[in-house]
Amino acid sequence: MIYCLGPKGSYTEEAAEIFSKIIKDKNIEYCNSIYEVFERVEQGNNNCYGVVPSENSIEGSVSLTMDLLLEFPVKILGEVDININHCLIGYSKDKIKKILAHPQALAQCRKYIKKHDWETESVLSNSMAVKKVYDMKNEELGAIASKKAGKLYNLNILDTNIQDYPNNTTRFILIGKDCEDSNDISFTNNDTTKKSTIIIELIGNKPGALYNILKEFNKKNINLTRIESRPSKTKLGSYIFYIDYETPENEKELINSLKNYVSNIKYLGSSNIFSKFL
Amino acid sequence: MIYCLGPKGSYTEEAAEIFSKIIKDKNIEYCNSIYEVFERVEQGNNNCYGVVPSENSIEGSVSLTMDLLLEFPVKILGEVDININHCLIGYSKDKIKKILAHPQALAQCRKYIKKHDWETESVLSNSMAVKKVYDMKNEELGAIASKKAGKLYNLNILDTNIQDYPNNTTRFILIGKDCEDSNDISFTNNDTTKKSTIIIELIGNKPGALYNILKEFNKKNINLTRIESRPSKTKLGSYIFYIDYETPENEKELINSLKNYVSNIKYLGSSNIFSKFL
Repeated sequence: MIYCLGPKGSYTEEAAEIFSKIIKDKNIEYCNSIYEVFERVEQGNNNCYGVVPSENSIEGSVSLTMDLLLEFPVKILGEVDININHCLIGYSKDKIKKILAHPQALAQCRKYIKKHDWETESVLSNSMAVKKVYDMKNEELGAIASKKAGKLYNLNILDTNIQDYPNNTTRFILIGKDCEDSNDISFTNNDTTKKSTIIIELIGNKPGALYNILKEFNKKNINLTRIESRPSKTKLGSYIFYIDYETPENEKELINSLKNYVSNIKYLGSSNIFSKFL
Repeated sequence: MIYCLGPKGSYTEEAAEIFSKIIKDKNIEYCNSIYEVFERVEQGNNNCYGVVPSENSIEGSVSLTMDLLLEFPVKILGEVDININHCLIGYSKDKIKKILAHPQALAQCRKYIKKHDWETESVLSNSMAVKKVYDMKNEELGAIASKKAGKLYNLNILDTNIQDYPNNTTRFILIGKDCEDSNDISFTNNDTTKKSTIIIELIGNKPGALYNILKEFNKKNINLTRIESRPSKTKLGSYIFYIDYETPENEKELINSLKNYVSNIKYLGSSNIFSKFL
């Protein structure tokens, strides 16, 4: 079973369909929130997977996904990048007064919305925005979502590629339960580089202590692909760091060397990077 | 003139009042969005200031503020931390079906809202949420905001401290126009450590290249207080970094040494850290 952010027609669905082919499981169930996806994976068995957005090329990290990766006993099993083409969906462009969309979509189309002087309302997903516009049959409402979502509800595609920046890509990750009888062996993908993710809390919680961590990676010639800080939620100015790197041969040695500098470390696994053209 | 995110009763107002005493300017004008604050500062003269939230101890950076600090020709002149005590504001707790608030407040009270199974609607600020609940006179609506905002509109404070984590603090920054006849001299504050902020784009755009930057800080014994990455908005996996550090005596030397490793650097100035108890 694959749980993904719904309803049908979301960008997450596109990612879920790719992962569905890889893990050979056609059962996709739609959840109301990213939180619910994590909950279902935690409550399910080892054959339960979740698909959530982790990062967008314009808006950056999806903070909720980052926080839940720390909170729930899950690991990352794979990732895939999906091109985002935001469309304006509704009845008639001239009559629109308010735009409904997920907060990230609203942020990604900020200049476009500002130009038209429309009000905005955040909803839990873009496809939910389309559903709402359809359900309410109100010509003053418009939604931001994929062309697919607009067609699903028989609404008009009033404009395409309305995002402020042209290269808009969202990375989706496949998550699974973190348990002893590992579930990532079934779909190893030898062609691609594997990528690992760790979450660390530095001793003394000083951002400067990050230098020691990066020194270890540099000494071992390991490529970092992403460093992100998130608040530790204890006090302002205290952070935890999310680090993505190309999985080295002797990963255990790396993790052990980092332990000298961290008070906490969570290893989220080594995952496969999948192409969207399978 | 001080521009701050309105309407009256917002947490930003509290910060603006503190800055107002420091720069001895009592004219506070309320803007509809963070974007508008930056615009007004850019369009105004050297005596125009802006107050915007930059970071919260739970939710992390305010992405829009980060992006606009890069986009607009401004510098950071000061910062102050404000304790956040989110209250539930409305008519009667039992009748509430939907909560209005700024997306960050909704995120900070996620567990509380989930427990009550309320719907949510994002609005541009918490005080605007209170104003909406007041204007619509609808008992099914509630707002999240400060006690002050609730009292301003004569609504009931139905619950206090409803945020999921106890230590909820927001850092606000005072921004000014970046121009030759510097406007930060008038209120130097010799008692406190000064803090500088730079935004850098690493050569080759590789997160691993961050190691060279941290090495320079380490060599010069300069304390880093924050490192944040934001997407460069050109392609996924390409980042720019925001670095805060205690301003060293020879800052010019530091900046010059960093230039070997960066393709772009924006210096946002050295600013004063103000206490809220002035």
